[in-house]
Amino acid sequence: MKAYQALTERFQRLSRLDHLAAIAGWDMQTMMPSGGSDARGEALAELSVMHHEILVQDSTAELIAQAQQESLESDQQANLNEMIRYYTDAALLPKELVEAKALAGSRCEQAWRQQRTENDWQGFQKNLIPVVELSRQEAQLRAQAQGSTPYDALLNLYEPGMTSERLDTLFGELISWLPGLLQQVVAKQSPLTSTPTQRIYPISQQKALAESVMQLLDFNFNHGRLDISAHPFCGGVSTDVRITTRYDTSEFLSAMMGVIHETGHARYEQNLPKQWPGQPIALARSTAIHESQSLFLEMQLGRSQSFLRRLHPLICQHLTAATDLSLDELVKQVQHVSPGFIRVDADEVSYPAHVILRYEIERSLINGEVEVSDIPELWDEKMQRYLGISTAGNYRDGCMQDIHWTDGSFGYFPTYTLGAMYAAQLFNSLEQQLPSIEEAITLGELKPIFAWLNQNIWSQGSRYSIDTLMQQATGETLNPVWFKQHLERRYLGT
Amino acid sequence: MKAYQALTERFQRLSRLDHLAAIAGWDMQTMMPSGGSDARGEALAELSVMHHEILVQDSTAELIAQAQQESLESDQQANLNEMIRYYTDAALLPKELVEAKALAGSRCEQAWRQQRTENDWQGFQKNLIPVVELSRQEAQLRAQAQGSTPYDALLNLYEPGMTSERLDTLFGELISWLPGLLQQVVAKQSPLTSTPTQRIYPISQQKALAESVMQLLDFNFNHGRLDISAHPFCGGVSTDVRITTRYDTSEFLSAMMGVIHETGHARYEQNLPKQWPGQPIALARSTAIHESQSLFLEMQLGRSQSFLRRLHPLICQHLTAATDLSLDELVKQVQHVSPGFIRVDADEVSYPAHVILRYEIERSLINGEVEVSDIPELWDEKMQRYLGISTAGNYRDGCMQDIHWTDGSFGYFPTYTLGAMYAAQLFNSLEQQLPSIEEAITLGELKPIFAWLNQNIWSQGSRYSIDTLMQQATGETLNPVWFKQHLERRYLGT
Repeated sequence: MKAYQALTERFQRLSRLDHLAAIAGWDMQTMMPSGGSDARGEALAELSVMHHEILVQDSTAELIAQAQQESLESDQQANLNEMIRYYTDAALLPKELVEAKALAGSRCEQAWRQQRTENDWQGFQKNLIPVVELSRQEAQLRAQAQGSTPYDALLNLYEPGMTSERLDTLFGELISWLPGLLQQVVAKQSPLTSTPTQRIYPISQQKALAESVMQLLDFNFNHGRLDISAHPFCGGVSTDVRITTRYDTSEFLSAMMGVIHETGHARYEQNLPKQWPGQPIALARSTAIHESQSLFLEMQLGRSQSFLRRLHPLICQHLTAATDLSLDELVKQVQHVSPGFIRVDADEVSYPAHVILRYEIERSLINGEVEVSDIPELWDEKMQRYLGISTAGNYRDGCMQDIHWTDGSFGYFPTYTLGAMYAAQLFNSLEQQLPSIEEAITLGELKPIFAWLNQNIWSQGSRYSIDTLMQQATGETLNPVWFKQHLERRYLGT
Repeated sequence: MKAYQALTERFQRLSRLDHLAAIAGWDMQTMMPSGGSDARGEALAELSVMHHEILVQDSTAELIAQAQQESLESDQQANLNEMIRYYTDAALLPKELVEAKALAGSRCEQAWRQQRTENDWQGFQKNLIPVVELSRQEAQLRAQAQGSTPYDALLNLYEPGMTSERLDTLFGELISWLPGLLQQVVAKQSPLTSTPTQRIYPISQQKALAESVMQLLDFNFNHGRLDISAHPFCGGVSTDVRITTRYDTSEFLSAMMGVIHETGHARYEQNLPKQWPGQPIALARSTAIHESQSLFLEMQLGRSQSFLRRLHPLICQHLTAATDLSLDELVKQVQHVSPGFIRVDADEVSYPAHVILRYEIERSLINGEVEVSDIPELWDEKMQRYLGISTAGNYRDGCMQDIHWTDGSFGYFPTYTLGAMYAAQLFNSLEQQLPSIEEAITLGELKPIFAWLNQNIWSQGSRYSIDTLMQQATGETLNPVWFKQHLERRYLGT
């Protein structure tokens, strides 16, 4: 086990660099004044290069080859498999490409913050083109090595084992019934009670509400915190999880539901296995499984009638402008379906349409079938087809709304809807296994839910493949039927 | 210039690691929940090991030897000299000693936090002895290499070129008249008007005041920010300077003056030369010169009658509990002299006594003339002699009050009083060169002052030795007469 042992030490060193990158990255989004961005971008790029150098040095390949001959226990073997995956993903790319992509991404992302508010597509396009070009180079190199399409090679960085062939089936089927369901739901739902305009929900009150909801969801404040950023995210490290939200003083639901979402990510991170510090096996299984945890809390649990019954008094208690909000109205608002421009504000029914639109565009972009300049028109056309609204000329609320492409995170978007499907499947299993759970939720007794998630998902880290993990938790691999059933039950009452 | 060029790239890489260490370190003091500390400590230690490995690798020595043969311009030569200094300081120590000292220091510092509150000298002594022992070993090795006394070798880490022989003269002269001056000032000053107790200065108001003072002092908020920490400091990087303070809701002066102090450090950092990014020549000249900039703003400018005249309306405007504070009373409070136990709370007149006491003890300690067990008695004896108060049995407010010795930062203390002397000399030169400056200060026209500091200190980075820097700025090397003149003028009106 000498080679395996040496590898664990190397990966522990890498995890410490990851720690610094995570904190400096969080700081960049939450604390850093804009004048600090160039030097920060360079420091993070340098760290990324050093991480790369340590990971791909020749001796890593030698140690891996030796460790494969050693007699390992099953967890050690799983850890070694993850090491091999990280090594292979990294060793494929020349150092210059890694550095150029990090720099171009950082530049594009920083400028995007201003450009988006100015609806400046021309300016944004100039920065995005090199990011796409470098991402295509990356995809080509990865695709050659694993014998896949370029896009699949990037997709696998986030969802190991997933293919666009499987996605085309899953998403193709989904988008065949979604616009119809959407129309049915919109036609069926009763209108929202018009509330007096100009209500003000002060940030301090919203923050206090958010923290009390995080407490209800067992977020560990000794190992994490809540802050503000332009684009909400869950960052930091598992011993110190940093989640963020953004507040709108004229409306409180989006911040509150966003915090529930990020708390789902955070609880996964905070409860990853502790017995292998700094080892790949102790990391979250995949991006889509991560998303399944945030959507489990936000969508499956958070928007359910029974959870909202528990949340309602907390809202009335913290927000002076919401003391007269009835439970019925709260449920109606939280479950309201209304196709709109913005993915992160989308309801649960429209959301997959936003994702499928992005998936289709980025797949074509990376596979070289369309160019950056084609994006706005494609976006508008698909928005009209799937959601019945146009984004012509409105880049800010169209193709410039997301951060993902700015730093070249192509292949990420599908994980949102995969996550929604996993979440529905997990919640369905939980209900089968704990039939009294709905009543417990109403009472705020959430420990059994968290114990179930901890046992089946959180504490498993990356011990098993995604299919095995789902099989063990729910008795089957990903089955999209549960997501459809969930939407029909909640929104059509069938 | 190939070798020199290679060195600049290596030092740029190191400066990017320094960037990450600075931000992660700032976060640790300001943002991190306590549960994050173990992993953060490990990540920072790993970074420090990597920094050391990169700096002291054999090829650095080879490149330095080659670069010394290359034809360099004067700034390049100055940069190379700084590189040699950093390399030599780092390469001298065996890895085992560095690790042992870090471990002993971390242990001593951790335990000290609790031991200080418990006045537990016996417990503290046990942990301090190995720290002193390892610091003596470090000092011996450094002293042999540079042919100095052991203490001077540590002093030089903070103030390159300074010797204890020169300090003995400077400080010996100072302490010959300081206790007498102190008695005169205390006897002469009029008592403070007793103010109603239980006034509350809300943190939000104090923060707004602090930020408006920072604005007055031209702090660049696009390249920095103000936060809260238990112990105020100036951290971050020159493109993103992070200063901190702590607020006491029953009293606003200490936070406000502390912010002025840290703003002095910050403006130096923010205005270091930009033409050599990541190079040692672009760094601040020394710890004492850094302190001279904070004390220039806090003591020379900040506590002057003319500046307080400008500050007074800001205070009344921001603090609802201070609207009736008169300018006279403000000046009296800010210039009040009162010998006490605690260095960080000391007024400008008492402060050097605290420093000289520490200097005398740590010099003897490192040179092996006294032992750790002798410290409390020496402390008490010197406190009585210099400040007329006894710390017998009161370790908490005596020799256990500072963090510096806990992790072996011997040689640092003198820089506080050197900084005060440099600041007085610089301010005196400024007054000579810009005779109308006092009136300008009253009006809040501070640009000429900052332009002068920028030209003479900030923009010079580490191009020149400290003596040359002072010679160019003021026409002479460090001359203690200006500090004495400053104290006598302000506090005796002579």
